Amino acid sequence: MATTGTDLSRMREMNQLSIVWALRGNPPSTVTELAGRAGLSRPAVDVLVQALVAEGWAQVQEPGAGSVVGRPARRYRFRADAGHVLGIDVGVHKVLAVLSDLEGNLVRTLRRPVDPEAPPAERLAEVDGVIDDVLRATGMTPDDVWAVTVGVTGPVDAAGRTSLSTPLPGWTEADPVAHLAARFSCPVRVENDCKLSAVAERWKGVAQDADDIVFLLAGLRTGAGLILDGALRRGHGGAAGEIGALKAVRWLTAPDHLQTCPGIPDTAAPGEAAAWVFQAARDGDREARGAVRRYTRDLAVGVAALVLTLDPQVVVYGGGFSRSADVVLEPLRRELTKHCLRLPELRASTLGDESVALGAVRLALDEVDDRLLGDRLSAPSAPRR
Amino acid sequence: MATTGTDLSRMREMNQLSIVWALRGNPPSTVTELAGRAGLSRPAVDVLVQALVAEGWAQVQEPGAGSVVGRPARRYRFRADAGHVLGIDVGVHKVLAVLSDLEGNLVRTLRRPVDPEAPPAERLAEVDGVIDDVLRATGMTPDDVWAVTVGVTGPVDAAGRTSLSTPLPGWTEADPVAHLAARFSCPVRVENDCKLSAVAERWKGVAQDADDIVFLLAGLRTGAGLILDGALRRGHGGAAGEIGALKAVRWLTAPDHLQTCPGIPDTAAPGEAAAWVFQAARDGDREARGAVRRYTRDLAVGVAALVLTLDPQVVVYGGGFSRSADVVLEPLRRELTKHCLRLPELRASTLGDESVALGAVRLALDEVDDRLLGDRLSAPSAPRR
Repeated sequence: MATTGTDLSRMREMNQLSIVWALRGNPPSTVTELAGRAGLSRPAVDVLVQALVAEGWAQVQEPGAGSVVGRPARRYRFRADAGHVLGIDVGVHKVLAVLSDLEGNLVRTLRRPVDPEAPPAERLAEVDGVIDDVLRATGMTPDDVWAVTVGVTGPVDAAGRTSLSTPLPGWTEADPVAHLAARFSCPVRVENDCKLSAVAERWKGVAQDADDIVFLLAGLRTGAGLILDGALRRGHGGAAGEIGALKAVRWLTAPDHLQTCPGIPDTAAPGEAAAWVFQAARDGDREARGAVRRYTRDLAVGVAALVLTLDPQVVVYGGGFSRSADVVLEPLRRELTKHCLRLPELRASTLGDESVALGAVRLALDEVDDRLLGDRLSAPSAPRR
Repeated sequence: MATTGTDLSRMREMNQLSIVWALRGNPPSTVTELAGRAGLSRPAVDVLVQALVAEGWAQVQEPGAGSVVGRPARRYRFRADAGHVLGIDVGVHKVLAVLSDLEGNLVRTLRRPVDPEAPPAERLAEVDGVIDDVLRATGMTPDDVWAVTVGVTGPVDAAGRTSLSTPLPGWTEADPVAHLAARFSCPVRVENDCKLSAVAERWKGVAQDADDIVFLLAGLRTGAGLILDGALRRGHGGAAGEIGALKAVRWLTAPDHLQTCPGIPDTAAPGEAAAWVFQAARDGDREARGAVRRYTRDLAVGVAALVLTLDPQVVVYGGGFSRSADVVLEPLRRELTKHCLRLPELRASTLGDESVALGAVRLALDEVDDRLLGDRLSAPSAPRR
């Protein structure tokens, strides 16, 4: 059969990519190991991996002197530190930044508190500050960062704006993409915090085995993020998962049952009040158990709406309240039984308050993969917007 | 660079497939046209298309004698009639079968009425009868059918059973896959009627341009089918779209507002009552307009739950009530505005009561594509289960 030059060059690109995928996330590998993983011949892999070393995607690991008899095979590893990505959680009370290498190894995590009432300019100044801190601490410049993803509360549109609604004061007018574009020439993306937490649960959390995930961000506000068929569900206008806006499902008022529970010490701040109630319920306090039951009863209506709509494999209970999942999940399961045709598994998140930034890192890594390791292999350097 | 024999044989398969895709759904094509569409060289396409003719996937169309000066190029066409698929709608009141060729051209559509109270054995006998009628009318045998998809009401599990709930009397005990396997050796699949209608709307209906679709089956019962990112959403246990089971969204009782409207003639059957109310509302009857308003107000709660969860591009109003979309869509839009952060487009279905069978045909064609034109090209004959 005739094989044209274009076909062969395309095939070489595809094979080179398959070697990158065979290298990445694996310990240093021999040509024989790579050939097995990629389903290619040893001579072909030898040529391909040399080219990857020359381009800067791979590195030779010379065999150590010593114990092995005979000449050990040369090994190759993916250059995970060829570039880095930043995930940044812009929350109501904090800004949290996580720097990761290209294999998803977390290099540095830093946070700064933010006044909950801070206007956008002040909040963005804290974002700049935490980025400065991370870059200084790791000896990097903005050019070493290949993608930035920022998490915020509220539905995020394609331009990274949060114009429909957000609890961050004044943030509907903020333009975080434009702000960060002033110092980064790499892709900058903004995404909703619940959606990023859902991504994080599938990447490093309690739902790594699942392709259909409903993530609940449970706290004084309740939100949801959806992974369907393994992919983040954004929605046509970025507003998927916003079931909490529907009054009939009672998420807007569900946490009030906790806030108004009798017995809460006068000195407790709003966030601490709920924690006090969960602890009292754990200790067997009758009033507190009633408050938790009413909270889960109302929470369950919205969760049932999601479950009946999507029929997911797993529902992850995350957010600030997830530390009290031990007193929430059982009553929640009982309530869901009343509403649903079939129940998914309920699991408690263990990622804590880093889940948004972690999900942001994962999306930033996906962006790098799409740009540099997608259809064809690009040079190992920061993609441009 | 070294290219192994295995690589080349795999590439030949992929190229052969790309020619099948370039042939199908197009008018008879020359080698030059196919080469352009598939991005391959003319000599390569010439070899590939000859092999496809020999295997029975393609047919030569000899140039007609006559008007053209010089020798016109030989043309090739996909053998759409190499096989056929069956889509069957098993409804409460009817069984409807549609036979299609491999390009989705509908060859024959036949229906039989069924007693709404018929037990499963009687309903399956009508299914057998309508299949007999279709095969007889087209001179085919069961071996000429390459895939069968059956639509029923209620959430369908992986085995084709409807054990959670269905309005078809006794059907939770029925096993339609086993029943049809007695005469068909090709793949037989059962799917939910709302899901199939959603598939039909994207294939031949009012949502051909959309990848994110909520389909509403609106009638005396209300159901939903979801297309997300272009793919049918089945759910982990086949129960996606069942939001109507949640009492809080009021779908269970919404049509009652129509049924109880004052002024309905005593002689009207349940289905006719709603039609009477819609017509009266159209004519300006005050009571009827109030009933339609209350119906859309309750319908809107469930639609809003779907819209807020999924943020789709389009909501299609289908099912029996879609003939009255002219008096429903405007009040529905107004109600949704109260609940939703952003509104999708609302469109009225025009497929009528063939949408379930049409969607079944589409899924059956997809099954054939997966089996025969998927990873590698198989022989043109019925796939086996």
